[in-house]
Amino acid sequence: MYNDIDLAALAEVCENAWDAFLVFKRTQVSQRALLMRTIATALEETGDELIAVAMKETNLPEARLRAERGRTIFQLLQYADACEKGDWLEIRIDTAIPDKNPPKPDIRKMLVPLGPVAVFGASNFPFAYSTAGGDTACALAAGCPVIVKAHPAHEETSTIVAQAIQKAVEKCGMPKNIFTHVYGKSFEVGKALVTNHRIKAVGFTGSYGGGKQLFDWANQRPEPIPVFAEMGSVNPVFILNEKLEHEYATVAQQYAGSITLGVGQFCTNPGLLFATKSPGLDEFKLALATAIKEINPGTMLHTGIAKAYASKREVALSQPSVSLVAESSTAPNEGQGQPTVATVSGEQFLANPLLHQEVFGPYSLLVECNDTNQMLQIARQLEGQLTATIMGTEADLKSNINLIEAVKNICGRIILNGVPTGVEVCLSMHHGGPFPSTTDARFTSVGADGIKRFARPLSFQNWPNSLLPEALKNENPLHMWRTVNNQLTQSAM
Amino acid sequence: MYNDIDLAALAEVCENAWDAFLVFKRTQVSQRALLMRTIATALEETGDELIAVAMKETNLPEARLRAERGRTIFQLLQYADACEKGDWLEIRIDTAIPDKNPPKPDIRKMLVPLGPVAVFGASNFPFAYSTAGGDTACALAAGCPVIVKAHPAHEETSTIVAQAIQKAVEKCGMPKNIFTHVYGKSFEVGKALVTNHRIKAVGFTGSYGGGKQLFDWANQRPEPIPVFAEMGSVNPVFILNEKLEHEYATVAQQYAGSITLGVGQFCTNPGLLFATKSPGLDEFKLALATAIKEINPGTMLHTGIAKAYASKREVALSQPSVSLVAESSTAPNEGQGQPTVATVSGEQFLANPLLHQEVFGPYSLLVECNDTNQMLQIARQLEGQLTATIMGTEADLKSNINLIEAVKNICGRIILNGVPTGVEVCLSMHHGGPFPSTTDARFTSVGADGIKRFARPLSFQNWPNSLLPEALKNENPLHMWRTVNNQLTQSAM
Repeated sequence: MYNDIDLAALAEVCENAWDAFLVFKRTQVSQRALLMRTIATALEETGDELIAVAMKETNLPEARLRAERGRTIFQLLQYADACEKGDWLEIRIDTAIPDKNPPKPDIRKMLVPLGPVAVFGASNFPFAYSTAGGDTACALAAGCPVIVKAHPAHEETSTIVAQAIQKAVEKCGMPKNIFTHVYGKSFEVGKALVTNHRIKAVGFTGSYGGGKQLFDWANQRPEPIPVFAEMGSVNPVFILNEKLEHEYATVAQQYAGSITLGVGQFCTNPGLLFATKSPGLDEFKLALATAIKEINPGTMLHTGIAKAYASKREVALSQPSVSLVAESSTAPNEGQGQPTVATVSGEQFLANPLLHQEVFGPYSLLVECNDTNQMLQIARQLEGQLTATIMGTEADLKSNINLIEAVKNICGRIILNGVPTGVEVCLSMHHGGPFPSTTDARFTSVGADGIKRFARPLSFQNWPNSLLPEALKNENPLHMWRTVNNQLTQSAM
Repeated sequence: MYNDIDLAALAEVCENAWDAFLVFKRTQVSQRALLMRTIATALEETGDELIAVAMKETNLPEARLRAERGRTIFQLLQYADACEKGDWLEIRIDTAIPDKNPPKPDIRKMLVPLGPVAVFGASNFPFAYSTAGGDTACALAAGCPVIVKAHPAHEETSTIVAQAIQKAVEKCGMPKNIFTHVYGKSFEVGKALVTNHRIKAVGFTGSYGGGKQLFDWANQRPEPIPVFAEMGSVNPVFILNEKLEHEYATVAQQYAGSITLGVGQFCTNPGLLFATKSPGLDEFKLALATAIKEINPGTMLHTGIAKAYASKREVALSQPSVSLVAESSTAPNEGQGQPTVATVSGEQFLANPLLHQEVFGPYSLLVECNDTNQMLQIARQLEGQLTATIMGTEADLKSNINLIEAVKNICGRIILNGVPTGVEVCLSMHHGGPFPSTTDARFTSVGADGIKRFARPLSFQNWPNSLLPEALKNENPLHMWRTVNNQLTQSAM
């Protein structure tokens, strides 16, 4: 429907974004916050049309899409507040000590924007992690122009959202090239974007293969740039003995729901369950099987994803010693994903790295460990994850301290007695994790701390008050929290 | 004098560091601060012996070495205070809202250590950027074990410092493998260390070639890890017209001193001076020449560095249209570096990338621009720098806003009417900068914010108060500043 941008035009887009950066970086945080709120309003105004188009392109249900647009608007508003409040600027001021030997100069530090950011949205979140999603919101808050490459699976949806953003940019009197929307189904467009010298950072949500490729291109540039790629995760769940024995029925219900939520197409979908062999585990398996059988197959995002699910599920089920626990009683139609739980022993799991990999869809593997030692051994060998979950009673937790510590080492969020699906948009959320779940464990893609991905510190030494940025002036005209001579304060100096 | 560690032994060192990490990461910040203060005391106690050995190995003068050890002790104490105070933990707490739909869980986030860190020290700072230097201090503060590879140019100095650290580790009852000192003159040791899967970050201070190689190895690992390499900088200085006209004599004196300070062996040494052709510039050149002629050659760190300086200086001086402004009247002895200033036109500078490169030593190139437009064009094309300096009157600054903005884009610290040499150890200092001055512009290697290089966020969802880390408990027992429900506060909840 849309033609790929040609590479000469793309290079011009990047130059224009750079020119826009020179203006945009000098805007006040209040102006950027206003822009983000105006985008939120414009997104609200896309009304039923956007939902209808997104339903057609993504197969996601209407209620889910309306909720996701609501979340996207909420994100923009929340990050706008955070942008304006300015805690993210990490302001540090040390005043001069002229009679020190040698004299100590006045030094003031704050974060400044990196430059134009390339954003590659997600197929599974057409709004919240796409065109006007978290990456775009954070980059604009930081003062960075954004170039979004429309996701090939929902280009029309992306176009409508991009138009809403462009309308808001115009309304706010901002340089139009702080936001550009380009099309590119081909490999070449993505590569040209990431390797263009005007691009200073990359945001990505998608597969390991895609994210790692962008990361490699970015690091091989003459000037390497940061890539924030969220690349998926199997989100292991460790169900401890007493919990299993006492609450197997509740846990089974909870997890049957979490595994199949949104046809298993969330990055926090629990793909691995660990428990030790016991009568409790047998009961849990039965209860989980009963629950899974009753859940109907759902239509996946597009046929390519459904086909990939069917084939990866097949491969996983055909591994040595893997056996089916249950699948939905209703057979899937074309394009649907069939809820499935399989099981394998701890030994086999340790021996077969393929079993550690994500099967994107409503699939989970229950690993039956011989004992808690084996569970610990597995936790110590697992790859990096967005989340990990411990299901345990107080007694379980007390007797599994080493396990909990091992689990902390491999994840960005550790959940107790809950499910990993559901990513709250708030400052305390860390949606990130050790490689390979992301390419940079130090930054989050959800919550206002994500703004810091697109900024770097700059120190001003010996500048007179009148020439400093507003955030650094003595009077503290923006009423920000600042660390002045090692003390956090909101006062003027 | 010392044999390279063999690679099997090095792998064991890394395993041991990992085991120590599992204990060390659970220590309280107060325990780590105590460790750092104990290291500071042990370093103090190295007394005259350390200074004598360092003088022999580095050719640095006694007063400079005593001052540098003082700075290293000061760093350890300052970062210990910051470690204990805990601002760097970036604590965010959002309390539960059970009646929200869906219910919002309690989520609390703080930074946690990455794991064992490999540190490669600098030849030009045997204390402050080496064995017990900023990288080691920051990594220990974060809760990361450290493996230092002794710099081949000062292995004996490094050994004495390492013994002081080991004594302090023992005195504090910490696991001994939180600090290991290894020797390796060969390429293989460095590579094996950076590519060992137990190593989770790298700190480096040195040449572009060395830093970039570590960066590439780290990014090509199955699990890429962050490399914080500070790789040098030419620290451009832009001298504006009115300043030049009115204060050429003072500026010339100031810069003759800065260019030759420590025989030009500082990473913030000003290697490029930009000014526009004018009678003021002619006067400045004369004054600078007079000053440079009077400064005696100094002994460089070792003969290899002195030879490299002589040859790079020769290459720089032999470039088309480059001419000598002045060199010290006294000829250098073997091992010494001769103070030198050369000049070239703006056109030639733009045309010849070799002239943009660092000549490590007491050398600076004065670039004579046709006008401020050409100066702006140059500023827009310069590579990333640790620092950049503007010398200007108020009128100069007002008429050069675009230049100042362009300069901000390429540096980590922007100095007004001063010299870049002299890096204050304080929170507001950013000692970092866009590539190629460092591999990660988002982090500093001086000041307590450098602790954050070795940490990543971890969110705790739905954990009871009793099982949370001290820093996240309701009572706020460590009296830290925390953002609770979006408000910074030091209060208990």
